[in-house]
Amino acid sequence: MPQINEDRRRRLRELLERRELDAALITEIHNVRYLTGFTGSSGALILPVDGDPVFATDGRYIEQGETETGLEPRLVTGPLPPRLPPLVVEARVRRVGIETHDLTVDQAAALREADRDGSLEFVGLDRAVEELRTVKDADEIAALREACEVSTLALDQLAAGTILDRSERDLARELDNLMLDFGAEAVGFDTIMASGPNSSIPHHHPSSRTVQRGDLLKIDFGARVRGYHADCTRTFVVGAEPADWQRDVHAAVHAAQAVGLKHARPDADTRAVFDAVVASLEPTGYGDKFVHGLGHGVGLLIHEDPFMGETHTGRLPDRTAITIEPGVYLPGLGGVRIEDTLIVHADAPEILTTASKDLRVIGT
Amino acid sequence: MPQINEDRRRRLRELLERRELDAALITEIHNVRYLTGFTGSSGALILPVDGDPVFATDGRYIEQGETETGLEPRLVTGPLPPRLPPLVVEARVRRVGIETHDLTVDQAAALREADRDGSLEFVGLDRAVEELRTVKDADEIAALREACEVSTLALDQLAAGTILDRSERDLARELDNLMLDFGAEAVGFDTIMASGPNSSIPHHHPSSRTVQRGDLLKIDFGARVRGYHADCTRTFVVGAEPADWQRDVHAAVHAAQAVGLKHARPDADTRAVFDAVVASLEPTGYGDKFVHGLGHGVGLLIHEDPFMGETHTGRLPDRTAITIEPGVYLPGLGGVRIEDTLIVHADAPEILTTASKDLRVIGT
Repeated sequence: MPQINEDRRRRLRELLERRELDAALITEIHNVRYLTGFTGSSGALILPVDGDPVFATDGRYIEQGETETGLEPRLVTGPLPPRLPPLVVEARVRRVGIETHDLTVDQAAALREADRDGSLEFVGLDRAVEELRTVKDADEIAALREACEVSTLALDQLAAGTILDRSERDLARELDNLMLDFGAEAVGFDTIMASGPNSSIPHHHPSSRTVQRGDLLKIDFGARVRGYHADCTRTFVVGAEPADWQRDVHAAVHAAQAVGLKHARPDADTRAVFDAVVASLEPTGYGDKFVHGLGHGVGLLIHEDPFMGETHTGRLPDRTAITIEPGVYLPGLGGVRIEDTLIVHADAPEILTTASKDLRVIGT
Repeated sequence: MPQINEDRRRRLRELLERRELDAALITEIHNVRYLTGFTGSSGALILPVDGDPVFATDGRYIEQGETETGLEPRLVTGPLPPRLPPLVVEARVRRVGIETHDLTVDQAAALREADRDGSLEFVGLDRAVEELRTVKDADEIAALREACEVSTLALDQLAAGTILDRSERDLARELDNLMLDFGAEAVGFDTIMASGPNSSIPHHHPSSRTVQRGDLLKIDFGARVRGYHADCTRTFVVGAEPADWQRDVHAAVHAAQAVGLKHARPDADTRAVFDAVVASLEPTGYGDKFVHGLGHGVGLLIHEDPFMGETHTGRLPDRTAITIEPGVYLPGLGGVRIEDTLIVHADAPEILTTASKDLRVIGT
């Protein structure tokens, strides 16, 4: 996809010009991928406002780097970071934007040291590429859609099979394998499979506990396709009619999630979306049982800008990809979380994770 | 294992004292795990030479942090990095060691900013904890041994089954599942399954290519147990007697690997070990086909100190865990790599990856 990467570099160049920078040194590896198409683990980009981009990688990625980026890679021997500074100096630029949220103190010191005559001025880019990445283009939305479809297919197949008396670990592994069967290039993150009282732990690690009749079963999972992540949570009841408290909690979370979806519109204040969801939970008595953020951007990273929670401010861009994932957790008893991945649009979001959000009884 | 973590903290304290530091701020997450036992993804440690260690984490890890570390966690709301500086200031120390290879430019600036009256002096720790980590203690060696056993069992079971006409991707997935079946907590890194001409690519990604009779099959893989990684490579011939060139290349690599094992002794110069292996390949005519480093430390990271290659200098500590992994790659034809994980000892290394290194014919 060299054309789309060139479009993205053009947008970054415009931004550099506005900030009166001559070039950017991009080291955050997902940003490098976004701007070049390179999928390896070691690469960097020097992007001058005028002149050709310089893509650098090490010997392991000679062919791959050239094929994926359509650029002629500058090869360096050994680990990349210590080899970058001379390339930056060579680029004959003056004001260089650097990724101060990614560059380590040691790497920044090496840059200054390589610039022996002090001709370079380093300026923080302030997550400029991350900001560009919040608005998803057509290629990105297609990959996200596919990742979410694969995830939905895998979940529905798991839910249709045997659940009772199987361990959380065993069920998580089956779900992971189903995602790969349906076309995921990888499992996007460690699957959360939390049964019974374990469902009240927001980030539970699958254990040897076997699923019992009447358990809540909370599943937080997602496939990765072409680098893009799905993120989906559904909570089921296993092998029995739901108890009243399970219906109550599920209904409260389901309604709160709908409030989140309603408020997730272009230009919405992220804190206001969070507050609206919290406010909707107040009358249910579960307001203080929602103990984490409301959602986050998804894309090349499973957690990326924009973030929505108590401590985050900002506005939702049009065509950003985010999750909305309220939860209610009753320690020792159980918890419910419902999470979608969606694309923000003016009329209504496109919800990519299409598995049913009703309280389903599975494993009967 | 709070006792072992306390021992490790004591060793770091001694090192801080020698460097006339009052405290260390440990942010690299594997170093945090090494010194506290915490296995979560968000945590930091402030270790004063005198006084109690301060372990900080966020709301997701309240219980886990306390259980695993035996310390009373200082909880912070939201992402950890911006919340750390006040805790450091609060610790009432003067000279603070920081991990400049891990701390970003932004995080370092936040530290300086929090220190309003300029009472703190920050000094680079220069990978001090990584250096402590190069010498493995009994708990670590036990975990590494287990990870390697699991990996060997999985490989031998895969090798005993059907191989022909299956895709690299399919075989890689079976191997991954076998590691989990045999007790791995996770697959340690992306399995390399490279057949036929693909085996000449050092870091090949499993593809849809189906394995053919007469192929070389190079498998680089490893299980993770209690955070510790196995790293093993074996190269097989599939479904036919090896061709002469396959025997030749395999014999050359096998002999070179033995040279590496012979030279891997406490206090050996890492560059000299590398040079000895390269020299042993010269008479075979394959000297210029060995295009990567000789090996690396393994532990909480799959690649960690000490590194052995053309660009690395240093000495092997007693009881360090490393790989020895020479390879010969003939582009378009095929390649052979043989890799062990081992513990360095004075008499002879303990080789943890015990699968046969003979040229085995599988999938007949």
